[in-house]
Amino acid sequence: MTSTEHERTGVWLVGARGSVGTTTVVGALALRSGLSDSTGLVSGLPEVALAGLPDLRDLVFGGHDVDTGSLGKRAELLAAGGVIPLALLPLLEHELAEVDARILVGLQPGGDESQADGIARLQRDLERFRAEHHLARVVVIDVSSTEPPVRDPATVADLETVELALAAEESPLPTSSAYALAAFRAGCAFVSFTPSPGPRPPALMQAAARYAVPWAGSDGKTGETLVKTVLAPMFATRALRVRSWASYNMLGGGDGRTLADPEAAASKKDSKARGLESILGHPVDGPMHIDYVPDAGDWKTAMDHVSFEGFLGVRMSMQFTWSGCDSALAAPLILDLARLTARAHEAGRVGPVSELGFFFKDPAGSDEHRLSAQWDALLAMCAELGGAR
Amino acid sequence: MTSTEHERTGVWLVGARGSVGTTTVVGALALRSGLSDSTGLVSGLPEVALAGLPDLRDLVFGGHDVDTGSLGKRAELLAAGGVIPLALLPLLEHELAEVDARILVGLQPGGDESQADGIARLQRDLERFRAEHHLARVVVIDVSSTEPPVRDPATVADLETVELALAAEESPLPTSSAYALAAFRAGCAFVSFTPSPGPRPPALMQAAARYAVPWAGSDGKTGETLVKTVLAPMFATRALRVRSWASYNMLGGGDGRTLADPEAAASKKDSKARGLESILGHPVDGPMHIDYVPDAGDWKTAMDHVSFEGFLGVRMSMQFTWSGCDSALAAPLILDLARLTARAHEAGRVGPVSELGFFFKDPAGSDEHRLSAQWDALLAMCAELGGAR
Amino acid sequence: MTSTEHERTGVWLVGARGSVGTTTVVGALALRSGLSDSTGLVSGLPEVALAGLPDLRDLVFGGHDVDTGSLGKRAELLAAGGVIPLALLPLLEHELAEVDARILVGLQPGGDESQADGIARLQRDLERFRAEHHLARVVVIDVSSTEPPVRDPATVADLETVELALAAEESPLPTSSAYALAAFRAGCAFVSFTPSPGPRPPALMQAAARYAVPWAGSDGKTGETLVKTVLAPMFATRALRVRSWASYNMLGGGDGRTLADPEAAASKKDSKARGLESILGHPVDGPMHIDYVPDAGDWKTAMDHVSFEGFLGVRMSMQFTWSGCDSALAAPLILDLARLTARAHEAGRVGPVSELGFFFKDPAGSDEHRLSAQWDALLAMCAELGGAR
Amino acid sequence: MTSTEHERTGVWLVGARGSVGTTTVVGALALRSGLSDSTGLVSGLPEVALAGLPDLRDLVFGGHDVDTGSLGKRAELLAAGGVIPLALLPLLEHELAEVDARILVGLQPGGDESQADGIARLQRDLERFRAEHHLARVVVIDVSSTEPPVRDPATVADLETVELALAAEESPLPTSSAYALAAFRAGCAFVSFTPSPGPRPPALMQAAARYAVPWAGSDGKTGETLVKTVLAPMFATRALRVRSWASYNMLGGGDGRTLADPEAAASKKDSKARGLESILGHPVDGPMHIDYVPDAGDWKTAMDHVSFEGFLGVRMSMQFTWSGCDSALAAPLILDLARLTARAHEAGRVGPVSELGFFFKDPAGSDEHRLSAQWDALLAMCAELGGAR
Repeated sequence: MTSTEHERTGVWLVGARGSVGTTTVVGALALRSGLSDSTGLVSGLPEVALAGLPDLRDLVFGGHDVDTGSLGKRAELLAAGGVIPLALLPLLEHELAEVDARILVGLQPGGDESQADGIARLQRDLERFRAEHHLARVVVIDVSSTEPPVRDPATVADLETVELALAAEESPLPTSSAYALAAFRAGCAFVSFTPSPGPRPPALMQAAARYAVPWAGSDGKTGETLVKTVLAPMFATRALRVRSWASYNMLGGGDGRTLADPEAAASKKDSKARGLESILGHPVDGPMHIDYVPDAGDWKTAMDHVSFEGFLGVRMSMQFTWSGCDSALAAPLILDLARLTARAHEAGRVGPVSELGFFFKDPAGSDEHRLSAQWDALLAMCAELGGAR
Repeated sequence: MTSTEHERTGVWLVGARGSVGTTTVVGALALRSGLSDSTGLVSGLPEVALAGLPDLRDLVFGGHDVDTGSLGKRAELLAAGGVIPLALLPLLEHELAEVDARILVGLQPGGDESQADGIARLQRDLERFRAEHHLARVVVIDVSSTEPPVRDPATVADLETVELALAAEESPLPTSSAYALAAFRAGCAFVSFTPSPGPRPPALMQAAARYAVPWAGSDGKTGETLVKTVLAPMFATRALRVRSWASYNMLGGGDGRTLADPEAAASKKDSKARGLESILGHPVDGPMHIDYVPDAGDWKTAMDHVSFEGFLGVRMSMQFTWSGCDSALAAPLILDLARLTARAHEAGRVGPVSELGFFFKDPAGSDEHRLSAQWDALLAMCAELGGAR
Repeated sequence: MTSTEHERTGVWLVGARGSVGTTTVVGALALRSGLSDSTGLVSGLPEVALAGLPDLRDLVFGGHDVDTGSLGKRAELLAAGGVIPLALLPLLEHELAEVDARILVGLQPGGDESQADGIARLQRDLERFRAEHHLARVVVIDVSSTEPPVRDPATVADLETVELALAAEESPLPTSSAYALAAFRAGCAFVSFTPSPGPRPPALMQAAARYAVPWAGSDGKTGETLVKTVLAPMFATRALRVRSWASYNMLGGGDGRTLADPEAAASKKDSKARGLESILGHPVDGPMHIDYVPDAGDWKTAMDHVSFEGFLGVRMSMQFTWSGCDSALAAPLILDLARLTARAHEAGRVGPVSELGFFFKDPAGSDEHRLSAQWDALLAMCAELGGAR
Repeated sequence: MTSTEHERTGVWLVGARGSVGTTTVVGALALRSGLSDSTGLVSGLPEVALAGLPDLRDLVFGGHDVDTGSLGKRAELLAAGGVIPLALLPLLEHELAEVDARILVGLQPGGDESQADGIARLQRDLERFRAEHHLARVVVIDVSSTEPPVRDPATVADLETVELALAAEESPLPTSSAYALAAFRAGCAFVSFTPSPGPRPPALMQAAARYAVPWAGSDGKTGETLVKTVLAPMFATRALRVRSWASYNMLGGGDGRTLADPEAAASKKDSKARGLESILGHPVDGPMHIDYVPDAGDWKTAMDHVSFEGFLGVRMSMQFTWSGCDSALAAPLILDLARLTARAHEAGRVGPVSELGFFFKDPAGSDEHRLSAQWDALLAMCAELGGAR
């Protein structure tokens, strides 16, 4: 009998009642009831599964959210939008309510609670969750709305500064980083699926090291950037010179609304642009827009236009249109990351798990953006973890 | 002083006066005169060049063709079509005429000459070319029109049968295979850049082994299939299920005219379809058309529509349009293959050089169709060849 | 009190249980119950409605089909495919069953019944429907599967020949034309929404004249051709020369299956190609494919590529992708045609109603393919009919 | 002998050495020398030509520009960019130099000259041009860079205010309006091919009336908007509800550089958005971007994504990519407008010629944006003008 058959793993979603959080929970419940198959689940592929990942049946879900609606209501909206099959909902109603009962009130920036108190509360929530459900470990995953980049890097430059500021009743941390700190203090692994600062500032990286937990991030690579990181190496290895690459993104939903704010969009755009330049080895001209089109709902449409030059200076072009359902693309990756990060934690990994760059637009601990090379790195880690078992 | 500084290598183009042949010669001349840069040239990338490849200045061009026009005339047509910069032509006029004088009459199926006599003549042409120009070795590259698949595989099942038939004044070989046999008998390496049978039938593979020469093939991967072999692994590694993949190709020029013949198109379609199924691991529904649109000239436009399924059965789609200049994409690869195959020959390689699959739709000696894995294999060979120097 | 307030109009669907037939009935029921709005309904626009059209509440549906399933079952399948909102079905269950009970067995070519007997039976069905429901008139609309073109035009060249052949127990008519003849003999107007021969052969046109009924057709213009007939006039009036126009169509469903048969597809392709040449005034090069992609279901995706030439010979291009739900596009037009043809019948029109060309790929009685000119003709007829009231 | 056989007409281009101006002159010279055909020339279509338009051979070109380069140099650059056939230039060298000699220094805002003096100078230039070349009339056409919208509408609200300000050595007019005022004072017709204010402010409209000259404008409809104004009526007449329309435009060249300035782009975007809303009858959601991509040169690529709703609320989509050479699309329209406006002037028309809305994104004197209705209006005017001859 291996450890995975016994142990249970907690998956704690920050922003649990959002589209991605809800789809993740519904999907996990459907999968383990045999109501859906493993399409979209990277950790369902044999070469990944051999790492000895926790079984989906051994995952226990909980989370924080500031939204006080219910997972069930949110799931109904997603079903109406074509993200979740309507027929699933009555079958999962009871289990969904159980998870919903484990979603606690998140941080409310600007409220009465000091940031220090808030972080302490989150830490207690996590510790209680782990104890109550006899969990071997908990992975905290941020799927909440995108925050702007940190304005003054000095405030988060080291852990001691942050701790002093917290003690002085200040709010030195972006909310996403406050969640990360609470997770680290509670001895939980952390996954940043958004471009928010989260575990990235130096102070947080020090915290992960101090509390000896692994983390992964950031900004899930689910659509246009995914495509870019397979197309760009094609141009590079064929010595074709990309002259301009225009990226037009339309999205609705809460994510779209958040990104309609130019400050929040800045995080996202930085994250999206980084890969292309890194792969091609030179800056690439061309507009990048992320537009909020309410009508699009949970669907993201990207229209890209690439102009490139070949032999003897001949100009050519490629265009693509990607039309994807964002939550359906992200949700299985959340399950993958929960399982893989839990396994890394079990194996004693500390700090950024660079081999998980396959899942991210802005891979922590790695400069590798090429999807295929990221895949190779992921498989190598899985083989190693599998062998170690 | 290393060998590459002294030795000269012959590049013998079958179909030398076609669009690809002409662009290859013009491009090589322009490059070594510093009139153009190495954009599009894979062998110009440092990680490939370290294999110790023959310098472009040490390549001597010649070829066979049944077209009795001139390279210069063809180059003018290509310049009018936007494939070659018009300004280059007067500067290269003299050198182009020199190469043109080394283009001899090719095989004329249906003429008076028996196939055996024709092959013997080709062999003599190659041997004379090598001797006259003091070439260390010659690489024969087929860039002529596509032939249909072999109708009766028994006729080409082994070398002895072929030789007996040749002796009996029969014509057992497709023309492309006759060229390959002549090359092998003359001790020349061979590259099949078209989907024609060429060196692929068992009889020819035996001939390569008997005469101890390497060969590479087949069907240059220059456009839609190139894109497919980077996109398909993306779907596969993300566990997204491709439900249909429609491939619509428009092309003009001589290649378009040839492929308007359904029999010739059959070779091409087979070759194009193979990769997708191999990468995804299951057959994929969806039409594939190759249409002759005279107006397109040397340009190939591919419009693809991919329908795929993600988590919880959600249907999504991706489309792309590739608009490439075929000859400009193919020509630098011809130079790459000439240099790499020559180096493999020098290093004693015999038979299919599977590490060159990166360049082909239907890679000989390999089932690997994923571009990134092919790239890794190519780099490994280059590193090994470079180390051996 | 005007006549439309009192009179009831029969709408008799040939192929009533197909996707288009079912969506038409469900849509009409939903609309008159206030469960849906008039989006997609041309006859709901004020400038068309002023013709004095029968109210949707005064339409009575019936039909013929060889499929012995039920409208309700078919509606469920369409709801699963996203064509009909699932929530509508329980609300319309009773009414749908009522219509279903009025769907009689259609013609079964190759069965025991002679064509003459079959036509007589259809005629009785229509007359009984009209009498039982006290209908002022009945419009028969063919929405069944596409038939191939007539093989021997001589057999349908005049009505007398047809009648003699019928009397001799032969089957001179394509099935679609047999339906049209039965309709005409019963004094019913006829609408051909498919490219099948239907009312187009000379014998049938004579029958329409003899029985003094109007008819409209043929081949509903719902997708790619609709777009073409607005884009082509743009090129024409701007004196831009279209050099090639590639048309790639993917469709699933029953229609896709039928059109996978090259003979049936021939009808469709003829019909689709006609407009472009007529509008541009010259033949246009370029492939047209209609491919069956089972995965596409009721959705039709068209990818078109237009190459054109402007001032001083500069080449430019335009591409479009149309992704439409065929039944949702067709169904409201069926209601429009039922109402408009009924009104034309009431107003004493006989023979092809050329002003309805707006709805068709192959407009009967007209060479006008430009959508805007067809719209002007439609509005002129509506104004005249409205004034005559 | 008709008047057109004798009279000569002046075409005075403001911004004569820009891409559009240069292409217009080169094209006109090539056409009348028989070196090119009338593709792209609306006034070459018989139904337009019947208006009795001045012959191309009877047009005399001149203009203003602040660029002191030469038409010949600019033409070479355009030839390098693929806009003009290189082979034409040596053949037209002499004539091009003749036109170049008639290009005078334009207005230099911010220089020493007062606006009143500048306008007087322009007026003299026009009068001298007309007298020297014995021209029956002159049409002044603004093809210079786009200006921002007028900041303070009060300054241009009436002609008297403007004249007082000019007398007071102020600069009340945008540069484009200063050109228009000079034209009107000189008794010349005026065409505004850009979105700049030009003849649109009330003061200028009064001037046109006072000096009894016709004018046309504004903002040439050459690409994406052209397509929109044929597609939008399709959705409208089919009662399909457009839910969002995303418009992404990439352009290089001088126009792109100007529009990279958000203030100047404001004029353009207003002008582009107006038509869609007017045709559909309701505001339409969706981003519109105009991005400067230097690499694009004179080519404009537009990628549009339309989401629409049909019967029973089904969501569908359409996308298009327009890839056009801006100067090649605009230049023939300049010739059309020169000829048509000259004919309108000859016929005694005063003020905005609303029937020329066919050529403009923001048609003066008309709310009609549908291309087909604009075409009908143009033909009606041509027929009337032709009949009057």
